[in-house]
Amino acid sequence: MASYPAYDSIRRIGVLGTGTIGASWATYFLAHGFEVDAWDPGEGWRERLIAFIDNAWPAMEALGLAPGADKTAIRFHDNPGDAVAQAGFVQENAPEKLDVKRDLYRRIDNTLPSQAILSSSTSGLIMSAMQDGFASAGRFVVGHPFNPPHLIPLVEVVAGKDTDPAAVDWSIGFYNHIGKHAIRINKEVPGHLANRLQAALWREAVLAVKDGLASVEDVNAAVAQGPGLRWALMGPHMIMNLAGGKGGYRQMIDHFSPGIAEWWETMTENPRITPELADSLIAGVAEEAGERSIDDLEEERDERLIRLLTMLKETAR
Amino acid sequence: MASYPAYDSIRRIGVLGTGTIGASWATYFLAHGFEVDAWDPGEGWRERLIAFIDNAWPAMEALGLAPGADKTAIRFHDNPGDAVAQAGFVQENAPEKLDVKRDLYRRIDNTLPSQAILSSSTSGLIMSAMQDGFASAGRFVVGHPFNPPHLIPLVEVVAGKDTDPAAVDWSIGFYNHIGKHAIRINKEVPGHLANRLQAALWREAVLAVKDGLASVEDVNAAVAQGPGLRWALMGPHMIMNLAGGKGGYRQMIDHFSPGIAEWWETMTENPRITPELADSLIAGVAEEAGERSIDDLEEERDERLIRLLTMLKETAR
Repeated sequence: MASYPAYDSIRRIGVLGTGTIGASWATYFLAHGFEVDAWDPGEGWRERLIAFIDNAWPAMEALGLAPGADKTAIRFHDNPGDAVAQAGFVQENAPEKLDVKRDLYRRIDNTLPSQAILSSSTSGLIMSAMQDGFASAGRFVVGHPFNPPHLIPLVEVVAGKDTDPAAVDWSIGFYNHIGKHAIRINKEVPGHLANRLQAALWREAVLAVKDGLASVEDVNAAVAQGPGLRWALMGPHMIMNLAGGKGGYRQMIDHFSPGIAEWWETMTENPRITPELADSLIAGVAEEAGERSIDDLEEERDERLIRLLTMLKETAR
Repeated sequence: MASYPAYDSIRRIGVLGTGTIGASWATYFLAHGFEVDAWDPGEGWRERLIAFIDNAWPAMEALGLAPGADKTAIRFHDNPGDAVAQAGFVQENAPEKLDVKRDLYRRIDNTLPSQAILSSSTSGLIMSAMQDGFASAGRFVVGHPFNPPHLIPLVEVVAGKDTDPAAVDWSIGFYNHIGKHAIRINKEVPGHLANRLQAALWREAVLAVKDGLASVEDVNAAVAQGPGLRWALMGPHMIMNLAGGKGGYRQMIDHFSPGIAEWWETMTENPRITPELADSLIAGVAEEAGERSIDDLEEERDERLIRLLTMLKETAR
């Protein structure tokens, strides 16, 4: 078992790939007082990264900056090996292609410091395949964030077959140390956990439109005006605990789960998203959005998200 | 097509059955300035109803009372026929048993005013079976709330086979008029829509524990610290619209839905909730709850829900 650095000793974080996810991570690390060592292969990436951070910084100010946080504390590197060489921790956000990730790992395998962990934002790939054969493989973990990472606390941490178990523990602790909410995913499955939960809900939401049960706008409201309000406050098991009244989760399971199991039997179809179904989904959100552009909707979401996160922090017990 | 009263002319609302759901509805109607005509067959129901309203009233004050709202504007009736006789609208909250509902409908069928609509809070029954054969059947709809109805805006409105389509339109309009968010469910299916969406998520959350993917507490966090934060702000289709970046929902469907469809293929199991699985679900929430009782957790949820609803109202565009 390798020994890993004390959390407080980490000053510099490598950020590999600065598209939407990488730029959002960089913003988060800067706001929490770290220096960022960034690298991206794209043309004009420095300017885009700076613009992203400038745009997101007011949100980070609203949520509270760490002492000494400096949005300009970025070093721009010409190759990934240099970006990780001085890093205490690395967040990798390369495109979701196995060969692209492995090419990148090949370029950093020799310069990654011997105590530094590399955490991949991958949502769809499997670490065991990504890490296979690299000298530093034991220090590679998945650290999958939720979009946008600079606002949403969740990080899913997953080990590959060659990952040192202590590297997983260290990563969970480190993410929590810097204000994220890290969870431990014990197996490598497609989509990890949170995206699978989201996919389960989306499947039923697609079926509801396909089957003519309700309009796209009404399906959206069926979540956002109903159970979605509770899901921001507690997860599905804790909600069922309260659905059981004074008898708690056992009461809920005894009284309601047989009925729900019957519904489940009617919820087994995997819809095919035909061009016609796609058109009606797209038309439905367009109708609901009305005059609001994607930018307007994003701005509205993020404004509310910041207020929601602030409220949750203020009411934490 | 019958003609229904102007919304502003409604002054008195019948509330049949004053258990948790009925009492919560009564609270909502009182807070919105209506008089309530209540009936329940249970011993001691008047005292319990008054206690519920007293307990919930501060929440209604925090969310804003209608002018003239009076928490004592309740008439207690000894039989259901009297409770509906002067009502402009009736919310029925009898136990979830078809024969119990039909016995109750038999007792009010003759006294329900000719313009008044009866809306059933049923979550599990089908209106076509409930209404069959009654003189007033054309004015019976499902108006399914989400717990707790005095806080959560969603109401799912569903017609039975004998329901006048205009009664559905009127009911949706009336609920919206009094501050709820009503949606139209076009077919009678078990669980309507929102509970099916919730059941789809819960199924995957149960499987994650059964399969050892993550702990109960981490599954809860996978929602509440991640996608759940967005579901309080917008529904699943609008979220996918924003997941597509500038290209919107079409971009999301083109780029991500094939991958999600592959996950769906791995998400087809209906878990059996064995005693062992039930024990581990229950132990998991107990561990997460720690010292907090069900009452504490409910209080925490409702305090946060009130602040969340207030924030959403303040930021509505």
